[in-house]
Amino acid sequence: MSDKIFLRACRRESVERTPVWFMRQAGRYLPEYREIRRQHTLLEIVRQPELAAEVTLQPLRRFSLDAAIIFADILLPLPEMGVSFEFAQGEGPVIHEPIRSRQQIDRLYSFDPAQNLAHVLAALSIVRGELDPAVALLGFAGAPFTVASYMIEGKGSRNYAHSKALMYGDEDAWHKLMALLTGVTIAYLRAQVDAGADALQLFDSWVGCLDEADYRRYVLPHSRELFRGLHDLNVPLIHFGTGMQHLLGTIAEAKPDVIGIDWRLPLSRARQMLGNEVALQGNLDPVALLAPQDVLLGKVDAVLKENVGPGFIFNLGHGVLPPTDPQSLVAVVDRVRELSQES
Amino acid sequence: MSDKIFLRACRRESVERTPVWFMRQAGRYLPEYREIRRQHTLLEIVRQPELAAEVTLQPLRRFSLDAAIIFADILLPLPEMGVSFEFAQGEGPVIHEPIRSRQQIDRLYSFDPAQNLAHVLAALSIVRGELDPAVALLGFAGAPFTVASYMIEGKGSRNYAHSKALMYGDEDAWHKLMALLTGVTIAYLRAQVDAGADALQLFDSWVGCLDEADYRRYVLPHSRELFRGLHDLNVPLIHFGTGMQHLLGTIAEAKPDVIGIDWRLPLSRARQMLGNEVALQGNLDPVALLAPQDVLLGKVDAVLKENVGPGFIFNLGHGVLPPTDPQSLVAVVDRVRELSQES
Repeated sequence: MSDKIFLRACRRESVERTPVWFMRQAGRYLPEYREIRRQHTLLEIVRQPELAAEVTLQPLRRFSLDAAIIFADILLPLPEMGVSFEFAQGEGPVIHEPIRSRQQIDRLYSFDPAQNLAHVLAALSIVRGELDPAVALLGFAGAPFTVASYMIEGKGSRNYAHSKALMYGDEDAWHKLMALLTGVTIAYLRAQVDAGADALQLFDSWVGCLDEADYRRYVLPHSRELFRGLHDLNVPLIHFGTGMQHLLGTIAEAKPDVIGIDWRLPLSRARQMLGNEVALQGNLDPVALLAPQDVLLGKVDAVLKENVGPGFIFNLGHGVLPPTDPQSLVAVVDRVRELSQES
Repeated sequence: MSDKIFLRACRRESVERTPVWFMRQAGRYLPEYREIRRQHTLLEIVRQPELAAEVTLQPLRRFSLDAAIIFADILLPLPEMGVSFEFAQGEGPVIHEPIRSRQQIDRLYSFDPAQNLAHVLAALSIVRGELDPAVALLGFAGAPFTVASYMIEGKGSRNYAHSKALMYGDEDAWHKLMALLTGVTIAYLRAQVDAGADALQLFDSWVGCLDEADYRRYVLPHSRELFRGLHDLNVPLIHFGTGMQHLLGTIAEAKPDVIGIDWRLPLSRARQMLGNEVALQGNLDPVALLAPQDVLLGKVDAVLKENVGPGFIFNLGHGVLPPTDPQSLVAVVDRVRELSQES
């Protein structure tokens, strides 16, 4: 298992070229995904393991990727904890009754992922069986802060005012919610490894809205707990966020194996800030995939020239956008393979 | 004029206490503003100088502030250039026909602010006449990048994909648009100083979505031009943005007198990065104003303890949010006056 190039890079072992995958590599930009979506909602797909596995594998048939990531959603645990939501047309997920009070938090409950999210685990097993053994399989979950914010805001937010108001106004309730999410997330991610995942990514897309003092007080204890609860699995743990360059040093204290960096921070700066004890993943701006090919490849080259390996995985700084032409991903994968082999 | 404490702080002269004002200190969180909005739309207010002046002065009657900022909107120049918009209910501004092509850019035109935005200038003159002479009066405009992005996206955006797609896909058209906006902004800000503004703030709220290389290529030449075109006025120029800590050094190259910093970056770090040749403004998280008073004051103290003067103006890291209790601003102003006088 440790022969997979993706896993070796996560462990900062030397590799013959830079491994590459893309966040949201399965999804709406692919015609074959849209074809399936014509007959099924997103939640129908994730609830049918055969369909979820098929969608997971679609990008692997087109592109020479070094990792697959199971097709699922960071909010899948919510209904199992008593928080219902739906995907509103063109709006993303909308929580029916956002969590804003201690009383609501007291009513939330834990669950057994082997039962309640068995469909995700089944999809992982199917993919595991069909995947090229050289390709790594990633499981994932939302990080407690980002999932808590979703629960509290009820939808996307520009300023996370409700989340911070709860955090500042009822610190006990906040920590209770975070502890619940941390426990659930540990169990869910452990189950994913049991089902065949050989690395795990934690999506903390929204954590960059916090300053360092707040991160340290309201989030870090739970991050530490989370990584501690997964450590014995001996699979690489990736912590991904956006706009969080001011938090990198503090995030590293929880000991992820890999930190995902967005395009705002040059990777060489991240390496300076973090030292050599962690692998880096990133950081092409997904909007660059909408640019003419010469601009796109210039930006790929700039990422590679940061030259931060060993311990580097090429990826985007956020997910593939729906208007992306799949051919742009082909061009990026080719370029990464070509240039990273030269050096 | 140079006796005003706000202006002295902008010029990094020593001051007897830290001056303070708040972005969006006039607005929806004030009952007396909501009272006026019951009878007038936002655009009606800005088009009637007496009303705009009244709204500008409202927060000055409640709080001991060191600066007033004229009540206006960064998008006011758009219709005068051929780009119409409206404030959609609960959605913020929506551009009727977003600018996405060279042809549309070719059809845009410049205008004379003394004529087309005479109402803003008239409001400045009224405020100037009524304002305590110890209080500075700020004029402002949107920075070219943020205004261009609004024109192109048509509304708020999470990833600025259309803006970057135009920037990458037709660099000439992008620079033409930015040059037009730069020229218009220089003329508009000069007219505001003629009308009585004694400092100018440039709002570049969205620029943090760019990486440093893109900022340098697509924005910096225009920022330089803009600041150069205002330099002889000898009034302090403030460049404000959010999530732009990765750009600070580059932004400073255009030579603003003051840089506005959001709460993500501790001010002492900003001072380290920027040196002593620029004043800093910021950086309390506006969401802290929704917190219980002990948490709020703890955060005010933390900002003041960064101790980055001379050349420091206390402000928020972004605008006051509508649910804010005005009493929270009273508490902050009192605390800033009290603590900054001790030291």
